[in-house]
Amino acid sequence: MHESEIITSTSNTKIKETVKLQQKKYRNQTGLFLLEGYKPIKEAFESGIELHCVYTTEKYPEKFDFCKDKVVIVSQQVLEKISTTDSMPEAVAVAKQQKYNIESIKQAKRVALIENIKDAGNLGTLIRSACAFSYDAIILCGDTVDIYNPKVVRSTVGALFKLPVVSVSLNEAKQTFSKSVFIASVVNHKDIVNPETVDYTKPFVLMLGSEADGLSDEAIDVADVKTTIPMSSKTESLNLSTAGSILFYISAR
Amino acid sequence: MHESEIITSTSNTKIKETVKLQQKKYRNQTGLFLLEGYKPIKEAFESGIELHCVYTTEKYPEKFDFCKDKVVIVSQQVLEKISTTDSMPEAVAVAKQQKYNIESIKQAKRVALIENIKDAGNLGTLIRSACAFSYDAIILCGDTVDIYNPKVVRSTVGALFKLPVVSVSLNEAKQTFSKSVFIASVVNHKDIVNPETVDYTKPFVLMLGSEADGLSDEAIDVADVKTTIPMSSKTESLNLSTAGSILFYISAR
Repeated sequence: MHESEIITSTSNTKIKETVKLQQKKYRNQTGLFLLEGYKPIKEAFESGIELHCVYTTEKYPEKFDFCKDKVVIVSQQVLEKISTTDSMPEAVAVAKQQKYNIESIKQAKRVALIENIKDAGNLGTLIRSACAFSYDAIILCGDTVDIYNPKVVRSTVGALFKLPVVSVSLNEAKQTFSKSVFIASVVNHKDIVNPETVDYTKPFVLMLGSEADGLSDEAIDVADVKTTIPMSSKTESLNLSTAGSILFYISAR
Repeated sequence: MHESEIITSTSNTKIKETVKLQQKKYRNQTGLFLLEGYKPIKEAFESGIELHCVYTTEKYPEKFDFCKDKVVIVSQQVLEKISTTDSMPEAVAVAKQQKYNIESIKQAKRVALIENIKDAGNLGTLIRSACAFSYDAIILCGDTVDIYNPKVVRSTVGALFKLPVVSVSLNEAKQTFSKSVFIASVVNHKDIVNPETVDYTKPFVLMLGSEADGLSDEAIDVADVKTTIPMSSKTESLNLSTAGSILFYISAR
């Protein structure tokens, strides 16, 4: 903690570089991302994520002592500028992204494959639930929101640092997990089975598509099993992260 | 459809009154609310919700013909002003709120009681899931976000019009459903049972609290059964609407 260096200007070079991390382009260029609030910063630290610096105000709470050599004191106005939330967090940290490749997860027995998900809240909630129900890894396919998007990071509530997330093509996933059962979550499809009847004791890859369009035909083609959660005829669908989480729950019992 | 009356000014009295419905205060005063997009408008109409008017642009799509006597053509700028979403919907309707009292739901056998929920997305998603898993009614207790908040309406994806939602005190709920089993969703509590072992064949009231604070002590005190979804020790919690939806699913099998 360098009390002598209180940053009060939003034009400060370091602050300007930090604000840029709100954009995917700069996160990709630097391999860094933003963590907002005490809990995500603490959980990331405890999970071994490298913190570059932790911005907080002069009201510096002692609970950030665990990373006090990284603390940089800034004015409230500067902290607001760095933050992406409506209500200002106690602190915002700059942290190093974790990179996993498909090789590192090839032993995973319980995998969630998420295709073409653009909604940050849904993706974050799915990662949180996959972690709660003991999944080993997450694969992202197609056009998916960046996992280091601040809203995704927030919605995972720390789970992002507890299981590997890998972006690969559907083909690569199929090749890597050639011995796993591929289960597709679908709506209104022929040959569907009740998710309660699927055998989750063997290695499997559970595939989820976007809420609007569902899984691609390509993904449905590689599925060994197709399943739908039974629901009331009054409703045509569940929220995507809800449906995915219920399937995670069923597979984990 | 009154093509002669294209409204192009955001200062138009009717438009100004409509924009005010983005605020809870005016929704309460008028008993009206906003519906954004084709699907919510169509579903509300089909569920018998009274539409006062439906604002759309000159690109007026024929699919709004089902309510064409309510259509009012406005400029794109006016539609943007009325809308609360980032991407402009095809249309925004002004509709009449449905009012239910506790008497009207006293025969309900499967009830979800939601206490102190401030997050609009979570409340909307819970209503959507309760509908998908055949709940008969929803009770809101304590300090809860307005169900006619545009984000709640959007997140329910039409389910809001398919089951009654009533705001009452916990005491009133307990008196009305004195013969039902009160089930509390809790975390880290003594005497908890696995949700799979609860008897859902008898009338019940499933109680959910806020994600940050859980149910109030008062609510836990009225519970006959306390339950927690078993999860990995790596994670301390699920998203509130996820946890609630999993319990709805389990109770509906």
